[in-house]
Amino acid sequence: MSIRRIQASARFCEVSVHNGVAYFAGQVPETTVAQNAYAQTKEVLELIDNLLAEIGSHKSRILNAQIFLANMQDYAELNQAWDEWVDRANPPSRATVEAKLADPRWKVEIVISAAV
Amino acid sequence: MSIRRIQASARFCEVSVHNGVAYFAGQVPETTVAQNAYAQTKEVLELIDNLLAEIGSHKSRILNAQIFLANMQDYAELNQAWDEWVDRANPPSRATVEAKLADPRWKVEIVISAAV
Amino acid sequence: MSIRRIQASARFCEVSVHNGVAYFAGQVPETTVAQNAYAQTKEVLELIDNLLAEIGSHKSRILNAQIFLANMQDYAELNQAWDEWVDRANPPSRATVEAKLADPRWKVEIVISAAV
Repeated sequence: MSIRRIQASARFCEVSVHNGVAYFAGQVPETTVAQNAYAQTKEVLELIDNLLAEIGSHKSRILNAQIFLANMQDYAELNQAWDEWVDRANPPSRATVEAKLADPRWKVEIVISAAV
Repeated sequence: MSIRRIQASARFCEVSVHNGVAYFAGQVPETTVAQNAYAQTKEVLELIDNLLAEIGSHKSRILNAQIFLANMQDYAELNQAWDEWVDRANPPSRATVEAKLADPRWKVEIVISAAV
Repeated sequence: MSIRRIQASARFCEVSVHNGVAYFAGQVPETTVAQNAYAQTKEVLELIDNLLAEIGSHKSRILNAQIFLANMQDYAELNQAWDEWVDRANPPSRATVEAKLADPRWKVEIVISAAV
C-alpha cells in the first residue's frame, strides 16, 4: 500500500499518509516564537488545521495528540488555546509531558495522527 | 471510516478507535498518587486493562507502549509492576524515557495503542 | 487480525506488526555506548534497518520517527547521521525532543513506525 508524503524535505516530511491514517511531524511555532505559550499553541494548532486540510482531513478526525511542553507551568495556557480549538464533540486522545525542545524559543510541540 | 471515542470530555477522550486500532490517552494514577512508582504503575496498568475491556480488546493485543517516568530512578519499580502484568507470550514494543508530568505527584504515565 | 511480534522477550518485543503497520520499540545503542551522538545514531539507524529487513520493510517505508536526545546539544550530530541515512525521496515525519534515557550512556533513542 502506497505512502503519500506531504511537504517533504530531504530530512523529513510534515505528514505521511498510509492506509487511511496520517502521521504528523512535530508541529512547532514559526511566527510566534517570541510570544507566550497560548499564542504559540494557537499557531501550532493552525498549522495542524492547514495540514489536515491539505490531506482532506479535519480536526474532528484527529486520533491522538502527543504534546510536549518546554515548561509544564504553561499547561494552563496550552489548555486555553486547546479548548478554544478542539472539536468538543470529537476530541482525540491526548498525552502531555514536559520536554526541552530543539529551539529554546519554542514552548510547545504537538504531534498528532489523524484519520483521512 | 468512522472513529469511536471512549470516555470523551470536551478536552480529550481516553481512547479513539479507528480501523481496528485503539489510540489511548496517557494513563496516569488516580487513587495511588501518594504511593510509590510500583503502586502507581500497577494502578495505571489496571486503568489500561479496564479501557481495553471497554473496547473489546485485551493486554495480549497491545501494539506498543510509550512510558514516561518522572524520575528514571523508578525504572526498576516500573519494570516490577510491568513484568507482573504483561502478557509474557504477547508483549508489546516499548520505549521508556524520563519526562516531568502534568501533576508533580505522578511518577508514571503510559500511552499505548492496541489492536481491537 | 493477527499480531506478529519480532524478537520478543518476556518484557517487550522489538517490533509488533498489525494490519500492515509495524510499531517499533525504542532503539538504543548497543556497541557504541562509549561513543558520541553521531556514532550512536548511526548504530541505532543500522539496528532499525536490520529490524525493517526482518519484517520485509525498508527505510523508504517508514511512516514516522520519534527521536529522544539525552542532550539537545547533540541535535547537529543526530542530523548528520540521519541525513546520511534517510531515504531523501521518502523521508518520514519526525519529532525530536530532549529526554533523559534509561541508561545514562545512551545519547539517543529512536521509535519508528513503518508500513510493511
